[in-house]
Amino acid sequence: MFEVQVDGEFSATHQLRLPDGRCEPVHAHHWPVQVTVRAPATDAMGTVMDFHWLARLLEQVIAPLRHRNLNEHEELGPINPSAEHVARYIAAKLAPRLPEGVVLERVTVGESPGCRASYLPRD
Amino acid sequence: MFEVQVDGEFSATHQLRLPDGRCEPVHAHHWPVQVTVRAPATDAMGTVMDFHWLARLLEQVIAPLRHRNLNEHEELGPINPSAEHVARYIAAKLAPRLPEGVVLERVTVGESPGCRASYLPRD
Amino acid sequence: MFEVQVDGEFSATHQLRLPDGRCEPVHAHHWPVQVTVRAPATDAMGTVMDFHWLARLLEQVIAPLRHRNLNEHEELGPINPSAEHVARYIAAKLAPRLPEGVVLERVTVGESPGCRASYLPRD
Repeated sequence: MFEVQVDGEFSATHQLRLPDGRCEPVHAHHWPVQVTVRAPATDAMGTVMDFHWLARLLEQVIAPLRHRNLNEHEELGPINPSAEHVARYIAAKLAPRLPEGVVLERVTVGESPGCRASYLPRD
Repeated sequence: MFEVQVDGEFSATHQLRLPDGRCEPVHAHHWPVQVTVRAPATDAMGTVMDFHWLARLLEQVIAPLRHRNLNEHEELGPINPSAEHVARYIAAKLAPRLPEGVVLERVTVGESPGCRASYLPRD
Repeated sequence: MFEVQVDGEFSATHQLRLPDGRCEPVHAHHWPVQVTVRAPATDAMGTVMDFHWLARLLEQVIAPLRHRNLNEHEELGPINPSAEHVARYIAAKLAPRLPEGVVLERVTVGESPGCRASYLPRD
């Protein structure tokens, strides 16, 4: 199996709703993002897919999140915009754009330094 | 599947016993630690578990190792305090403290720069 | 399951042949390399294998690539020296040198910053 992984990033604010209905204060994070895709064999170029193509697909997905309040985002706001849910959102938007035969393995989103959340669509 | 990962660190000395009975010189390492936990779904907060709670659990486990000679540790000393065994020790202490439904996936311990050992309890 | 991981690096030039027969310009990369090996139990030293031994095995494999034009390499040149193929090449050379009971899990090769390719021989 082969994998390729690219990095992206965006800055955005959010506030999690606590189970008792209260909310955290609105606060900003710099969200580093890593996307990992897989293929069982390489293509005519010897690659899973072009790194820069994958990075552009990721950028298309995260650009609309940049400098937003994620609580006001139409899809992320209603479901609590945790790092876990941001990772799943990016995965859901990215997977259908991948070339045939290339499978999304993992999306990892960093929140504070030393804190990362991943969504693994296949597991 | 969702995962969250947090980082911790401690400094400690150790010396490995070689198979012929001799020991390495006692030497210090800065041990970075990464813990990864998994859950199939997010909780009422939209998270696997709170990052800071997981970081606190990790700190509770590694604080007693900090600035110790691991060869004099009651559990690690007798089994040779390799990075592999330190990772398994942290896993064994941490797993029972995780909330229900959250599973320990991996503990990674760095030793020298560019050298890491992991313990994966489920594999 | 236990894993150990070590880092290496080399600098080399390459140019990928495009499907239409044209080639990218020759360009240099600094290629960071990560090797991950696994064993179900630790040995008499409490380790999967000695970190420095694994790092030396990796260095033996990548030293012949250092400062080369990978397109002129006898094995990599004919198959397009993509990061994916470089990772598979390193895996193929390294796996037979591992001690008994230690299995190669993954070789990851970085290309540009934020772009990594892995080969996982077992998947």
